[in-house]
Amino acid sequence: MNIEERLRRYQAQLQLDFPEETFSAFELRLRMYQNWIETTLSGYFPDGPVSHETLIRSMRYSLLAGGKRLRPVLVLEFCRVCGGDVEKALPVACGVEMLHTYSLIHDDLPCMDNDDLRRGRATNHKVFGEFTATLAGDALQAEAFASVLSADLPPERLTRCGRILASVAGHNGICGGQQLDMDGEGKPLTEQELMEIHASKTAALIRGACLMGVAAAGGTREQEAAAITYADALGLAFQIRDDILDVTGTAEELGKPIGSDVQQGKTTFMTLYGEAACEQRVLELTDRAKNVAKMFLNSEFLCDLADTMAVRKH
Amino acid sequence: MNIEERLRRYQAQLQLDFPEETFSAFELRLRMYQNWIETTLSGYFPDGPVSHETLIRSMRYSLLAGGKRLRPVLVLEFCRVCGGDVEKALPVACGVEMLHTYSLIHDDLPCMDNDDLRRGRATNHKVFGEFTATLAGDALQAEAFASVLSADLPPERLTRCGRILASVAGHNGICGGQQLDMDGEGKPLTEQELMEIHASKTAALIRGACLMGVAAAGGTREQEAAAITYADALGLAFQIRDDILDVTGTAEELGKPIGSDVQQGKTTFMTLYGEAACEQRVLELTDRAKNVAKMFLNSEFLCDLADTMAVRKH
Repeated sequence: MNIEERLRRYQAQLQLDFPEETFSAFELRLRMYQNWIETTLSGYFPDGPVSHETLIRSMRYSLLAGGKRLRPVLVLEFCRVCGGDVEKALPVACGVEMLHTYSLIHDDLPCMDNDDLRRGRATNHKVFGEFTATLAGDALQAEAFASVLSADLPPERLTRCGRILASVAGHNGICGGQQLDMDGEGKPLTEQELMEIHASKTAALIRGACLMGVAAAGGTREQEAAAITYADALGLAFQIRDDILDVTGTAEELGKPIGSDVQQGKTTFMTLYGEAACEQRVLELTDRAKNVAKMFLNSEFLCDLADTMAVRKH
Repeated sequence: MNIEERLRRYQAQLQLDFPEETFSAFELRLRMYQNWIETTLSGYFPDGPVSHETLIRSMRYSLLAGGKRLRPVLVLEFCRVCGGDVEKALPVACGVEMLHTYSLIHDDLPCMDNDDLRRGRATNHKVFGEFTATLAGDALQAEAFASVLSADLPPERLTRCGRILASVAGHNGICGGQQLDMDGEGKPLTEQELMEIHASKTAALIRGACLMGVAAAGGTREQEAAAITYADALGLAFQIRDDILDVTGTAEELGKPIGSDVQQGKTTFMTLYGEAACEQRVLELTDRAKNVAKMFLNSEFLCDLADTMAVRKH
């Protein structure tokens, strides 16, 4: 099914379900993407051998715990704005979300951040125990590559997507970022150190998601360069907003206790710049993302997405 | 450099280094492969950003801890007997060893088998701490895919290799096997349960290594089928020999305390069959591996490898 046809069908369904409400073109497309990703993710690992049941339940527990699905949405949308077949990028998008989920499970482990709550629910190791949570993360990383490499795309595009994923997942990507984050715990960090942690821990996968969308569409160098600029601006604004919300948000909205950064003595963009300068940076970065998005045809969604992320409450 | 030219050069060097000794054609080729793999592995992750130094030292500590390098040797040799360019399969072989190393690091973690010694040295988490060991494993899994997908092979062969790796690494492969192994601890297992653990935990990656060698060479379906039969026979013989050595070996030869299976109340092939039947099974399986190897041209190495693995002391 063509992506615009899928959008029309989703709109018709939404009007049946919520006859009183109206949705903007942005909301409609975002919900369609999210709904499509949720449905697809929930079809993964339906039933392996009975003997692997605990592991599979643990993987699905975290994979289907909701969330904004920002990274897979970016894969799909960058594929679309580069003129690719969005249907075929779906396994790539789902692979990116699996990798993100694995990194969250491992970050929460007792030997890492030792968190009890994530998105308002008990963390994976609190429910399934430490070794199963470790293995669920390990397996989700492998299945992320399996999903990406299963996409019905030309082999050159597949290998390109796989290489991008491996590069953001490795020691110069999220693992290196988490190592720096752990090493820096309880110590005051300089702005440069904080930026370095952010660049590898959070920004890398957001950048990778945008680049995989371009790669799935067989996009140009110019499109890659624009995707990087957009991703890095969006990713940094995203992290600054996270740090603001940890101080100004509510536990209810965030699904986790607020003030945890301050409690743990963490250096954040809030401790470095203060709230007013943080808000200013988010605005500037959002403008930068929107400006570069305009090089794509049909850039409205990417612009609205940047705006929405900038003012989010959770 | 052609692989046979590489072999001749290695032989010349070996004769300079050990003028008194003679080496069989099998020993020569095995040592050449091992030496080539060691040299290549030691060139990985030479120096990332200084800030990631601890993580990289931890990854290299386990990756360069020696061992038989059985899995990468199988990749290279199956590529050779299928007529492929062995040089180009080297990054695939190294990727397989990275995946194997990651699985050992995580298996040793306190929340898993909680082992202090591996190959005569302190385990990764004993040296670098638990969170760094977890991250080193995570990063090595990602870098395994990066290495495989970096090989200078046609994209269809690369994606095939990547898919094989993902499939043996995921929930139906080594993660599922480790979950079953942990679930079964302290409980008596049936033969079927033990075989299932073995199939996913140990045999899967050995099978994957052989299949990736075939894939790197662009081998045929018949060659794939033969590789599977060889791998499964070799893999099971390997595990039974491991179980025998845990009872009859010496701590010095094994580089770890012996009798640990018995102490932990583990069901092994020794507890199920006894020593005589285990030895008999190893012989039968080795014969099966050698018989199927003969469908390849130049099968002497694969036959000698099966023989050598069958009688190994560590």
